[in-house]
Amino acid sequence: MEISIQKRVLEANESQAEKNRKYFSSKSIFVLNVMSSPGSGKTETLCRTLRMVMPRIRTGVIVGDICTRNDADRLEATGAQVVQINTDQFGGDCHLTADMVYRAANELDLDNLDLLIVENIGNLVCPAEFDIGESARAVVLSVTEGEDKPLKYPLMFQVADVAILNKIDLLPYLDFNAQEAVENMQKVHPGMPVFYLSAKTEEGFSPWIEWLSASVRN
Amino acid sequence: MEISIQKRVLEANESQAEKNRKYFSSKSIFVLNVMSSPGSGKTETLCRTLRMVMPRIRTGVIVGDICTRNDADRLEATGAQVVQINTDQFGGDCHLTADMVYRAANELDLDNLDLLIVENIGNLVCPAEFDIGESARAVVLSVTEGEDKPLKYPLMFQVADVAILNKIDLLPYLDFNAQEAVENMQKVHPGMPVFYLSAKTEEGFSPWIEWLSASVRN
Repeated sequence: MEISIQKRVLEANESQAEKNRKYFSSKSIFVLNVMSSPGSGKTETLCRTLRMVMPRIRTGVIVGDICTRNDADRLEATGAQVVQINTDQFGGDCHLTADMVYRAANELDLDNLDLLIVENIGNLVCPAEFDIGESARAVVLSVTEGEDKPLKYPLMFQVADVAILNKIDLLPYLDFNAQEAVENMQKVHPGMPVFYLSAKTEEGFSPWIEWLSASVRN
Repeated sequence: MEISIQKRVLEANESQAEKNRKYFSSKSIFVLNVMSSPGSGKTETLCRTLRMVMPRIRTGVIVGDICTRNDADRLEATGAQVVQINTDQFGGDCHLTADMVYRAANELDLDNLDLLIVENIGNLVCPAEFDIGESARAVVLSVTEGEDKPLKYPLMFQVADVAILNKIDLLPYLDFNAQEAVENMQKVHPGMPVFYLSAKTEEGFSPWIEWLSASVRN
Protein backbone atom coordinates (compact mmCIF):
# COMPACT_ATOMS: atom_id res chain seq x y z
CA MET A 1 0.00 0.00 0.00
CA GLU A 2 2.79 2.37 0.89
CA ILE A 3 4.42 1.68 -2.44
CA SER A 4 1.23 2.20 -4.44
CA ILE A 5 0.62 5.56 -2.74
CA GLN A 6 4.20 6.53 -3.47
CA LYS A 7 3.63 5.57 -7.10
CA ARG A 8 0.46 7.66 -7.25
CA VAL A 9 2.31 10.67 -5.80
CA LEU A 10 5.03 10.30 -8.45
CA GLU A 11 2.43 9.88 -11.23
CA ALA A 12 0.51 12.99 -10.16
CA ASN A 13 3.80 14.87 -10.12
CA GLU A 14 4.73 13.56 -13.58
CA SER A 15 1.40 14.74 -14.98
CA GLN A 16 1.85 18.27 -13.56
CA ALA A 17 5.46 18.26 -14.80
CA GLU A 18 4.29 17.62 -18.36
CA LYS A 19 1.82 20.53 -18.05
CA ASN A 20 4.63 22.75 -16.78
CA ARG A 21 6.87 21.72 -19.66
CA LYS A 22 4.23 22.66 -22.26
CA TYR A 23 3.46 25.89 -20.43
CA PHE A 24 7.09 27.02 -20.25
CA SER A 25 7.66 25.93 -23.83
CA SER A 26 4.66 27.99 -25.01
CA LYS A 27 6.37 31.01 -23.46
CA SER A 28 9.80 30.06 -24.92
CA ILE A 29 11.37 29.85 -21.48
CA PHE A 30 14.32 27.52 -20.86
CA VAL A 31 13.96 26.00 -17.39
CA LEU A 32 17.04 24.73 -15.56
CA ASN A 33 16.65 22.62 -12.40
CA VAL A 34 19.81 22.98 -10.28
CA MET A 35 20.37 20.31 -7.63
CA SER A 36 23.10 19.40 -5.12
CA SER A 37 23.97 18.57 -1.51
CA PRO A 38 23.55 21.33 1.05
CA GLY A 39 26.51 23.69 0.94
CA SER A 40 27.92 22.79 -2.49
CA GLY A 41 27.68 26.44 -3.54
CA LYS A 42 24.53 26.46 -5.71
CA THR A 43 23.45 29.95 -4.67
CA GLU A 44 26.88 31.53 -5.08
CA THR A 45 27.31 29.85 -8.47
CA LEU A 46 23.92 31.16 -9.56
CA CYS A 47 24.62 34.68 -8.29
CA ARG A 48 27.79 34.79 -10.40
CA THR A 49 25.98 33.27 -13.37
CA LEU A 50 23.15 35.81 -13.20
CA ARG A 51 25.60 38.72 -13.12
CA MET A 52 27.26 37.33 -16.26
CA VAL A 53 24.16 36.58 -18.35
CA MET A 54 21.77 39.39 -17.40
CA PRO A 55 20.32 41.52 -18.92
CA ARG A 56 21.26 39.75 -22.17
CA ILE A 57 19.32 36.72 -20.92
CA ARG A 58 16.28 37.80 -18.92
CA THR A 59 16.36 35.47 -15.93
CA GLY A 60 14.03 34.53 -13.11
CA VAL A 61 14.81 32.23 -10.18
CA ILE A 62 12.64 30.01 -8.04
CA VAL A 63 14.56 29.02 -4.95
CA GLY A 64 13.54 26.15 -2.68
CA ASP A 65 14.46 25.80 0.97
CA ILE A 66 12.78 24.19 3.93
CA CYS A 67 13.22 27.41 5.91
CA THR A 68 14.60 30.96 5.52
CA ARG A 69 14.73 33.28 2.53
CA ASN A 70 18.51 33.81 2.80
CA ASP A 71 19.13 32.49 -0.70
CA ALA A 72 16.34 34.54 -2.24
CA ASP A 73 17.81 37.70 -0.72
CA ARG A 74 21.26 36.92 -2.17
CA LEU A 75 19.81 36.16 -5.60
CA GLU A 76 17.58 39.24 -5.64
CA ALA A 77 20.64 41.42 -5.15
CA THR A 78 21.63 40.48 -8.73
CA GLY A 79 18.51 42.20 -10.08
CA ALA A 80 16.81 38.93 -11.12
CA GLN A 81 13.15 38.24 -10.45
CA VAL A 82 13.13 35.80 -7.51
CA VAL A 83 10.47 33.74 -5.73
CA GLN A 84 11.27 31.75 -2.57
CA ILE A 85 9.45 28.50 -1.84
CA ASN A 86 9.65 27.36 1.79
CA THR A 87 8.58 23.75 2.15
CA ASP A 88 8.13 23.93 5.94
CA GLN A 89 4.50 24.77 5.09
CA PHE A 90 4.37 21.39 3.25
CA GLY A 91 5.72 19.41 6.22
CA GLY A 92 9.38 20.24 5.54
CA ASP A 93 9.45 18.50 2.16
CA CYS A 94 12.91 17.47 1.05
CA HIS A 95 12.37 18.27 -2.66
CA LEU A 96 10.38 20.59 -4.90
CA THR A 97 7.37 19.23 -6.78
CA ALA A 98 6.01 20.24 -10.18
CA ASP A 99 2.99 21.80 -8.48
CA MET A 100 5.10 23.99 -6.17
CA VAL A 101 7.11 25.17 -9.19
CA TYR A 102 3.97 25.93 -11.22
CA ARG A 103 2.51 28.06 -8.46
CA ALA A 104 5.78 29.88 -7.81
CA ALA A 105 6.36 30.49 -11.53
CA ASN A 106 3.07 32.32 -11.77
CA GLU A 107 4.35 34.88 -9.29
CA LEU A 108 6.96 35.87 -11.89
CA ASP A 109 6.49 38.02 -14.99
CA LEU A 110 6.97 35.05 -17.31
CA ASP A 111 6.35 37.03 -20.49
CA ASN A 112 9.61 38.85 -19.86
CA LEU A 113 11.81 35.83 -19.16
CA ASP A 114 14.13 33.77 -21.37
CA LEU A 115 15.51 31.62 -18.59
CA LEU A 116 13.97 30.28 -15.39
CA ILE A 117 16.39 28.72 -12.93
CA VAL A 118 15.00 26.51 -10.17
CA GLU A 119 17.42 26.14 -7.27
CA ASN A 120 16.15 22.96 -5.66
CA ILE A 121 16.43 21.99 -1.99
CA GLY A 122 19.90 20.95 -0.88
CA ASN A 123 19.61 17.17 -1.06
CA LEU A 124 21.47 14.75 -3.31
CA VAL A 125 18.74 12.08 -3.08
CA CYS A 126 15.06 13.01 -3.27
CA PRO A 127 14.97 15.90 -5.79
CA ALA A 128 16.33 13.52 -8.46
CA GLU A 129 13.04 11.59 -8.31
CA PHE A 130 10.77 14.59 -8.98
CA ASP A 131 10.43 15.97 -12.51
CA ILE A 132 9.37 19.62 -12.25
CA GLY A 133 8.87 20.18 -15.97
CA GLU A 134 12.38 21.51 -16.52
CA SER A 135 14.20 21.70 -19.86
CA ALA A 136 17.48 20.50 -18.35
CA ARG A 137 19.02 19.52 -15.02
CA ALA A 138 22.38 20.52 -13.58
CA VAL A 139 23.98 18.85 -10.56
CA VAL A 140 26.59 20.76 -8.55
CA LEU A 141 29.28 18.81 -6.69
CA SER A 142 31.89 20.64 -4.66
CA VAL A 143 35.45 19.36 -4.45
CA THR A 144 35.18 19.14 -0.66
CA GLU A 145 32.55 16.39 -0.90
CA GLY A 146 34.69 13.44 -2.01
CA GLU A 147 35.29 11.66 -5.30
CA ASP A 148 32.85 8.80 -4.72
CA LYS A 149 29.61 10.79 -4.52
CA PRO A 150 28.50 9.92 -8.10
CA LEU A 151 28.77 6.21 -7.22
CA LYS A 152 26.95 6.65 -3.91
CA TYR A 153 24.15 8.85 -5.29
CA PRO A 154 23.93 7.53 -8.87
CA LEU A 155 20.36 8.58 -9.68
CA MET A 156 21.18 12.27 -9.29
CA PHE A 157 24.09 11.99 -11.72
CA GLN A 158 22.05 9.85 -14.13
CA VAL A 159 19.18 12.34 -14.39
CA ALA A 160 21.48 15.38 -14.69
CA ASP A 161 22.27 16.75 -18.16
CA VAL A 162 25.41 18.55 -17.00
CA ALA A 163 27.51 18.64 -13.86
CA ILE A 164 29.37 21.51 -12.24
CA LEU A 165 32.44 20.70 -10.14
CA ASN A 166 32.58 23.72 -7.84
CA LYS A 167 35.09 25.23 -5.38
CA ILE A 168 38.14 24.32 -7.49
CA ASP A 169 39.98 27.17 -5.73
CA LEU A 170 40.22 24.80 -2.73
CA LEU A 171 41.95 21.99 -4.66
CA PRO A 172 45.47 22.88 -3.43
CA TYR A 173 44.33 22.32 0.18
CA LEU A 174 42.51 19.02 -0.35
CA ASP A 175 43.39 15.42 -1.17
CA PHE A 176 40.56 15.49 -3.71
CA ASN A 177 41.28 13.73 -7.02
CA ALA A 178 39.22 15.68 -9.57
CA GLN A 179 39.97 13.22 -12.36
CA GLU A 180 38.65 10.33 -10.29
CA ALA A 181 35.49 12.29 -9.44
CA VAL A 182 34.84 12.97 -13.12
CA GLU A 183 35.58 9.34 -14.03
CA ASN A 184 32.98 8.30 -11.44
CA MET A 185 30.47 10.69 -13.01
CA GLN A 186 31.19 9.19 -16.43
CA LYS A 187 30.68 5.68 -15.03
CA VAL A 188 27.10 6.46 -14.05
CA HIS A 189 26.41 8.89 -16.91
CA PRO A 190 28.75 8.39 -19.87
CA GLY A 191 29.36 11.54 -21.89
CA MET A 192 27.87 14.03 -19.42
CA PRO A 193 29.60 17.42 -19.76
CA VAL A 194 31.36 18.56 -16.58
CA PHE A 195 32.25 22.20 -15.91
CA TYR A 196 35.12 22.87 -13.47
CA LEU A 197 34.69 26.22 -11.79
CA SER A 198 35.01 28.31 -8.67
CA ALA A 199 32.06 30.47 -7.72
CA LYS A 200 34.42 32.30 -5.37
CA THR A 201 37.10 33.30 -7.88
CA GLU A 202 35.05 33.03 -11.12
CA GLU A 203 37.69 30.71 -12.56
CA GLY A 204 36.29 28.38 -15.21
CA PHE A 205 32.96 30.11 -15.82
CA SER A 206 33.26 30.66 -19.59
CA PRO A 207 32.40 27.12 -20.81
CA TRP A 208 29.46 26.96 -18.37
CA ILE A 209 28.11 30.36 -19.48
CA GLU A 210 28.53 29.31 -23.12
CA TRP A 211 26.60 26.09 -22.52
CA LEU A 212 23.82 27.96 -20.71
CA SER A 213 23.60 30.71 -23.33
CA ALA A 214 23.44 28.20 -26.19
CA SER A 215 20.77 26.19 -24.34
CA VAL A 216 18.60 29.28 -23.84
CA ARG A 217 18.94 30.29 -27.51
CA ASN A 218 17.86 26.89 -28.86
CA MET B 1 -4.63 10.11 2.37
CA GLU B 2 -0.99 10.67 1.48
CA ILE B 3 -0.50 12.33 4.86
CA SER B 4 -2.24 9.56 6.81
CA ILE B 5 -0.05 6.93 5.13
CA GLN B 6 3.02 9.00 5.90
CA LYS B 7 1.84 9.20 9.51
CA ARG B 8 1.36 5.43 9.64
CA VAL B 9 4.87 4.87 8.23
CA LEU B 10 6.33 7.12 10.91
CA GLU B 11 4.26 5.43 13.64
CA ALA B 12 5.40 1.95 12.57
CA ASN B 13 8.98 3.21 12.59
CA GLU B 14 8.53 4.74 16.04
CA SER B 15 7.23 1.45 17.41
CA GLN B 16 10.24 -0.50 16.04
CA ALA B 17 12.56 2.22 17.32
CA GLU B 18 11.25 1.73 20.85
CA LYS B 19 11.85 -2.01 20.53
CA ASN B 20 15.40 -1.33 19.32
CA ARG B 21 16.01 1.04 22.23
CA LYS B 22 14.96 -1.60 24.78
CA TYR B 23 16.95 -4.28 22.97
CA PHE B 24 20.18 -2.28 22.85
CA SER B 25 19.66 -1.15 26.44
CA SER B 26 19.25 -4.77 27.58
CA LYS B 27 22.68 -5.41 26.08
CA SER B 28 24.18 -2.23 27.59
CA ILE B 29 25.11 -0.89 24.17
CA PHE B 30 25.27 2.86 23.59
CA VAL B 31 23.94 3.61 20.09
CA LEU B 32 25.01 6.78 18.30
CA ASN B 33 23.19 7.89 15.12
CA VAL B 34 25.55 10.06 13.04
CA MET B 35 23.94 12.24 10.39
CA SER B 36 25.06 14.93 7.92
CA SER B 37 25.04 16.14 4.32
CA PRO B 38 26.92 14.04 1.77
CA GLY B 39 30.62 14.78 1.94
CA SER B 40 30.81 16.41 5.38
CA GLY B 41 33.40 13.83 6.45
CA LYS B 42 31.33 11.42 8.58
CA THR B 43 33.30 8.34 7.55
CA GLU B 44 36.73 9.90 8.03
CA THR B 45 35.67 11.29 11.42
CA LEU B 46 34.45 7.86 12.45
CA CYS B 47 37.61 6.10 11.23
CA ARG B 48 39.72 8.43 13.39
CA THR B 49 37.33 8.02 16.32
CA LEU B 50 37.43 4.22 16.12
CA ARG B 51 41.23 4.21 16.10
CA MET B 52 41.21 6.33 19.27
CA VAL B 53 38.58 4.46 21.29
CA MET B 54 39.19 0.82 20.33
CA PRO B 55 39.82 -1.67 21.85
CA ARG B 56 39.04 0.17 25.09
CA ILE B 57 35.49 0.67 23.79
CA ARG B 58 34.36 -2.31 21.75
CA THR B 59 32.71 -0.73 18.74
CA GLY B 60 30.51 -1.84 15.87
CA VAL B 61 29.33 0.25 12.94
CA ILE B 62 26.25 0.07 10.74
CA VAL B 63 26.80 2.18 7.68
CA GLY B 64 23.99 3.30 5.39
CA ASP B 65 24.38 4.25 1.75
CA ILE B 66 22.11 4.05 -1.25
CA CYS B 67 24.86 2.31 -3.19
CA THR B 68 28.46 1.05 -2.76
CA ARG B 69 30.26 -0.38 0.24
CA ASN B 70 33.12 2.14 0.04
CA ASP B 71 32.48 3.45 3.54
CA ALA B 72 32.20 -0.02 5.06
CA ASP B 73 35.57 -0.94 3.58
CA ARG B 74 37.20 2.18 5.08
CA LEU B 75 35.63 1.53 8.48
CA GLU B 76 36.51 -2.16 8.49
CA ALA B 77 40.18 -1.25 8.07
CA THR B 78 40.04 0.08 11.65
CA GLY B 79 39.27 -3.41 12.96
CA ALA B 80 35.70 -2.61 13.96
CA GLN B 81 32.80 -4.93 13.24
CA VAL B 82 30.99 -3.33 10.27
CA VAL B 83 27.72 -3.99 8.43
CA GLN B 84 26.78 -2.08 5.28
CA ILE B 85 23.13 -1.35 4.48
CA ASN B 86 22.45 -0.40 0.85
CA THR B 87 19.02 1.14 0.45
CA ASP B 88 18.90 0.71 -3.33
CA GLN B 89 17.16 -2.59 -2.54
CA PHE B 90 14.48 -0.51 -0.73
CA GLY B 91 13.89 1.84 -3.69
CA GLY B 92 16.91 4.05 -2.95
CA ASP B 93 15.58 5.19 0.43
CA CYS B 94 17.06 8.49 1.58
CA HIS B 95 17.25 7.53 5.27
CA LEU B 96 17.69 4.49 7.51
CA THR B 97 14.66 3.08 9.33
CA ALA B 98 14.49 1.37 12.72
CA ASP B 99 13.73 -1.91 10.99
CA MET B 100 16.80 -1.72 8.73
CA VAL B 101 18.96 -0.99 11.78
CA TYR B 102 17.47 -3.87 13.77
CA ARG B 103 18.17 -6.36 11.00
CA ALA B 104 21.70 -5.07 10.41
CA ALA B 105 22.48 -5.03 14.15
CA ASN B 106 21.71 -8.72 14.34
CA GLU B 107 24.55 -9.42 11.91
CA LEU B 108 26.95 -8.09 14.55
CA ASP B 109 28.24 -9.86 17.66
CA LEU B 110 26.23 -7.57 19.96
CA ASP B 111 27.29 -9.36 23.16
CA ASN B 112 30.81 -8.08 22.58
CA LEU B 113 29.96 -4.44 21.90
CA ASP B 114 29.87 -1.36 24.13
CA LEU B 115 29.18 1.12 21.35
CA LEU B 116 27.21 0.85 18.12
CA ILE B 117 27.64 3.71 15.69
CA VAL B 118 25.10 4.11 12.89
CA GLU B 119 26.43 6.21 10.01
CA ASN B 120 23.22 7.34 8.38
CA ILE B 121 22.72 8.18 4.70
CA GLY B 122 24.21 11.53 3.63
CA ASN B 123 21.15 13.74 3.78
CA LEU B 124 20.49 16.72 6.04
CA VAL B 125 16.71 16.38 5.76
CA CYS B 126 15.00 12.98 5.89
CA PRO B 127 17.10 11.01 8.43
CA ALA B 128 16.14 13.59 11.10
CA GLU B 129 12.53 12.35 10.91
CA PHE B 130 13.31 8.68 11.56
CA ASP B 131 14.08 7.50 15.08
CA ILE B 132 16.17 4.33 14.84
CA GLY B 133 16.20 3.56 18.57
CA GLU B 134 19.50 5.35 19.18
CA SER B 135 20.78 6.57 22.54
CA ALA B 136 22.02 9.86 21.06
CA ARG B 137 22.33 11.69 17.76
CA ALA B 138 25.31 13.58 16.37
CA VAL B 139 25.13 15.90 13.37
CA VAL B 140 28.31 16.65 11.41
CA LEU B 141 28.59 19.98 9.58
CA SER B 142 31.72 20.79 7.62
CA VAL B 143 33.06 24.33 7.46
CA THR B 144 32.79 24.29 3.66
CA GLU B 145 28.99 24.09 3.83
CA GLY B 146 28.11 27.62 4.97
CA GLU B 147 27.10 29.20 8.26
CA ASP B 148 23.35 29.24 7.62
CA LYS B 149 22.75 25.49 7.37
CA PRO B 150 21.32 25.17 10.92
CA LEU B 151 18.70 27.79 10.02
CA LYS B 152 17.89 26.16 6.69
CA TYR B 153 17.72 22.58 8.03
CA PRO B 154 16.52 23.25 11.59
CA LEU B 155 14.98 19.85 12.35
CA MET B 156 18.34 18.08 12.01
CA PHE B 157 19.98 20.44 14.49
CA GLN B 158 16.99 20.28 16.85
CA VAL B 159 17.00 16.47 17.08
CA ALA B 160 20.80 16.24 17.44
CA ASP B 161 22.30 15.92 20.93
CA VAL B 162 25.73 17.13 19.84
CA ALA B 163 27.22 18.70 16.73
CA ILE B 164 30.63 18.26 15.16
CA LEU B 165 32.03 21.12 13.11
CA ASN B 166 34.46 19.29 10.82
CA LYS B 167 37.27 20.23 8.41
CA ILE B 168 38.53 23.11 10.57
CA ASP B 169 41.92 22.66 8.88
CA LEU B 170 40.35 24.42 5.87
CA LEU B 171 39.27 27.55 7.79
CA PRO B 172 42.28 29.65 6.64
CA TYR B 173 41.18 29.17 3.01
CA LEU B 174 37.47 29.94 3.48
CA ASP B 175 35.30 32.95 4.30
CA PHE B 176 33.46 30.73 6.79
CA ASN B 177 32.55 32.41 10.09
CA ALA B 178 32.62 29.55 12.62
CA GLN B 179 31.22 31.70 15.41
CA GLU B 180 28.20 32.60 13.29
CA ALA B 181 27.65 28.91 12.41
CA VAL B 182 27.68 27.96 16.08
CA GLU B 183 25.37 30.87 16.96
CA ASN B 184 22.95 29.59 14.34
CA MET B 185 23.12 26.11 15.88
CA GLN B 186 22.37 27.61 19.29
CA LYS B 187 19.40 29.53 17.86
CA VAL B 188 17.68 26.30 16.81
CA HIS B 189 19.05 24.17 19.68
CA PRO B 190 20.13 26.26 22.69
CA GLY B 191 22.89 24.66 24.74
CA MET B 192 23.84 21.93 22.26
CA PRO B 193 27.54 21.02 22.66
CA VAL B 194 29.61 21.64 19.51
CA PHE B 195 32.96 19.94 18.88
CA TYR B 196 35.36 21.73 16.50
CA LEU B 197 37.66 19.23 14.83
CA SER B 198 39.51 18.14 11.72
CA ALA B 199 39.25 14.50 10.75
CA LYS B 200 42.22 15.12 8.47
CA THR B 201 44.68 16.50 11.03
CA GLU B 202 43.08 15.07 14.23
CA GLU B 203 43.01 18.59 15.70
CA GLY B 204 40.28 19.02 18.31
CA PHE B 205 39.42 15.34 18.86
CA SER B 206 39.98 15.21 22.64
CA PRO B 207 36.71 16.84 23.82
CA TRP B 208 34.74 14.73 21.33
CA ILE B 209 36.40 11.49 22.44
CA GLU B 210 35.83 12.47 26.09
CA TRP B 211 32.14 13.10 25.44
CA LEU B 212 31.78 9.79 23.59
CA SER B 213 33.68 7.80 26.22
CA ALA B 214 31.62 9.31 29.06
CA SER B 215 28.39 8.59 27.16
CA VAL B 216 29.34 4.95 26.65
CA ARG B 217 30.29 4.52 30.33
CA ASN B 218 26.95 5.93 31.62
